[in-house]
Amino acid sequence: MSERIIIDMDEVIADTMGKMVSWYENEIGGVVDFDKMTMGRWSNGFPEEHRPMIRQKLHEPGFFRDVPVMEYSQDVLKEMNSRYEIFIVSAAVEFPDSLKDKYEWLMENFPFFTWRQLVLCGDKRMVYGDHMIDDIDRNLNHFKGEKYLFTAPHNKSATGFRRINDWKEAASIFLK
Amino acid sequence: MSERIIIDMDEVIADTMGKMVSWYENEIGGVVDFDKMTMGRWSNGFPEEHRPMIRQKLHEPGFFRDVPVMEYSQDVLKEMNSRYEIFIVSAAVEFPDSLKDKYEWLMENFPFFTWRQLVLCGDKRMVYGDHMIDDIDRNLNHFKGEKYLFTAPHNKSATGFRRINDWKEAASIFLK
Repeated sequence: MSERIIIDMDEVIADTMGKMVSWYENEIGGVVDFDKMTMGRWSNGFPEEHRPMIRQKLHEPGFFRDVPVMEYSQDVLKEMNSRYEIFIVSAAVEFPDSLKDKYEWLMENFPFFTWRQLVLCGDKRMVYGDHMIDDIDRNLNHFKGEKYLFTAPHNKSATGFRRINDWKEAASIFLK
Repeated sequence: MSERIIIDMDEVIADTMGKMVSWYENEIGGVVDFDKMTMGRWSNGFPEEHRPMIRQKLHEPGFFRDVPVMEYSQDVLKEMNSRYEIFIVSAAVEFPDSLKDKYEWLMENFPFFTWRQLVLCGDKRMVYGDHMIDDIDRNLNHFKGEKYLFTAPHNKSATGFRRINDWKEAASIFLK
């Protein structure tokens, strides 16, 4: 039986923060401080007075529908999908209007996945598999298998995890 | 740490089949044959020529929003929720328009749960916990913990599982 890999969506295969930063810089004219993105929270990089606006944006229907795809993730995951049992697991239930958007986004951009491979949850502690790739260290903490922290500005200070810096590096680990 | 219980939604806490049967009998004037509900598929109880219509109904936005709640499930789960770590796990991604409906339905009818406790997935094989209650035997097959088949017309011939016949019986197991 194939090994099971649990893969996160936002900031791993979907550049959600990138979309938000572009919107904030171009539409609001604000300045993002990537050095302040810590503790797994990229929202900390936005000025405190604008964080409620950022949060509201995440709740807008359609926000997650056209997020950019992370570089190389499509080609690498297409090949990984033929060798492993893959689940895309997103802590999305906090944003109820994102749920259908995330389903449609995945089916459009990763058409080799089926609806059976998508998991939309609130908390990831009930997920079980051989490997897990996530950008949030607290999502990895409860996982029993091999853990990989997908590098992002908001996790640069996290220690004690094997890191994956981009999808070419993921290929060197899982497609060797 | 509390034991974790994984609980299904449709036909366990939500009487989705009951809503469909009422609609079919009252609006279409059809006759449902409960004896033909087998193999975990309650749709087999509807005449074959009407199954595409039943399936389409499941895809309608709003269908899952006002499904009746299973008897005693609210009181029993409120108490169980204070003693166990509970996740409500629904294989809902096949029906993308049900996702937000199911979130709203759960928050309305089981207000003691939080969004962190809802999991909307395609396949349940990546779920991990101490106990799992489901009406579909193939959902239980991959589970590593204690399995409980929640009795329904479409699982009456399934053997080899401990059964829970209703939520009063669940209370006698989990709240003793």
